[in-house]
Amino acid sequence: MDSAALLDLLGNENRRRILRLLARKPCYVTEISEYLGVSPKAVIEHLRKLEDAGLIESHVDEQRRKYFHIARNVRLEVNVSPYGFASKSAYPANSSFDITTCRHLTLDVSWSDTDDLDELLHALEDLEQLENELSLAQRWVQGRLCDVLDRISENVGTGPESRIYADLLASIRSEPKSVGDLSEEIDAPREVVAELLESMADEGIVRRTERGWELTTEAETEPNG
Amino acid sequence: MDSAALLDLLGNENRRRILRLLARKPCYVTEISEYLGVSPKAVIEHLRKLEDAGLIESHVDEQRRKYFHIARNVRLEVNVSPYGFASKSAYPANSSFDITTCRHLTLDVSWSDTDDLDELLHALEDLEQLENELSLAQRWVQGRLCDVLDRISENVGTGPESRIYADLLASIRSEPKSVGDLSEEIDAPREVVAELLESMADEGIVRRTERGWELTTEAETEPNG
Repeated sequence: MDSAALLDLLGNENRRRILRLLARKPCYVTEISEYLGVSPKAVIEHLRKLEDAGLIESHVDEQRRKYFHIARNVRLEVNVSPYGFASKSAYPANSSFDITTCRHLTLDVSWSDTDDLDELLHALEDLEQLENELSLAQRWVQGRLCDVLDRISENVGTGPESRIYADLLASIRSEPKSVGDLSEEIDAPREVVAELLESMADEGIVRRTERGWELTTEAETEPNG
Repeated sequence: MDSAALLDLLGNENRRRILRLLARKPCYVTEISEYLGVSPKAVIEHLRKLEDAGLIESHVDEQRRKYFHIARNVRLEVNVSPYGFASKSAYPANSSFDITTCRHLTLDVSWSDTDDLDELLHALEDLEQLENELSLAQRWVQGRLCDVLDRISENVGTGPESRIYADLLASIRSEPKSVGDLSEEIDAPREVVAELLESMADEGIVRRTERGWELTTEAETEPNG
């Protein structure tokens, strides 16, 4: 499911309380209604929305009572910063995801294919610590990204719209690109892209060549390049 | 701000659109109203809520026009799984946060105190990649946590309430604890904790000693221990 739909669902206090309750144990409507102090009718409506989104599902026990439980893992991340507002949701990667392919990241956790209770509890502790460390690292990265974007703004001499300048520069850093390609890549109108490039060309930051727009940084070090 | 308040704010499509707009450039009320196709009155109300929460702030330019912009970095993470529903929000760690103190995590990014545009763009690229890798790693961890909890459930022979069993076992793994301590630590009523411990004692998984409740796993390897 997309992050907007997930944010709409989680933006309701009672639905969050239902999820918190179901994460402890499966419940039927009357239980939820009594716990929340909300009418069964309202609970049923919340459950319907959560079920439609695939967040919860139900099963019927021997007494033909319908129990609801959380269906699957979902993860949502939202970043708000002066340089961007981004939200993404995702299902956890399956175990075959190869963490060793990461270029900037190394993980070190005990994890063996074990059924020994003590080892499992040890793995649980490690994974919970790692989860915390990854959260800290994400916040650190977000802070650094902001610093870098601040410095790029200063460098390019732009004001508050600097994110779009940084995106343009980052995009042509590896190879020269046309206005059309850039417009598609950073999702901005062609005329906006053209205008920004022209203003940076005036500042001597970028230049237009027959291969497309490129940074002039190399030109500075190699005047005849 | 707490994650519940943040979820309430972000649970509204128009407020998300306002944030997305402000992340590109500071705007005044009429601009936002026209962009969103929403009355200025409604826009002002959304802006008030976002400003009260500290997500945005405003400044007045020479023409005495009031511009709104995003005030600071905030990060929100939500995990939904059959074993838990957790949300947390945080401000990015400041640059003095020491990533090297992480026990399970090593990061490798180029980051120097530079003002060179090319190096800054390179750092931007690295940080954005790292951000992606951290996201993948978090999803991987969430998946592994679920696997481990599944196995603990099987091991202990419990059903859907197994998260609370796992929390109890993890808590007494390092040292024996009393029912009172455990009740506080895992935030569950004393009588619930006592009952769960008794049921696990019947299964031979834990035992009560004069130092408190402890795992019996060591007892199995050392019968006279």
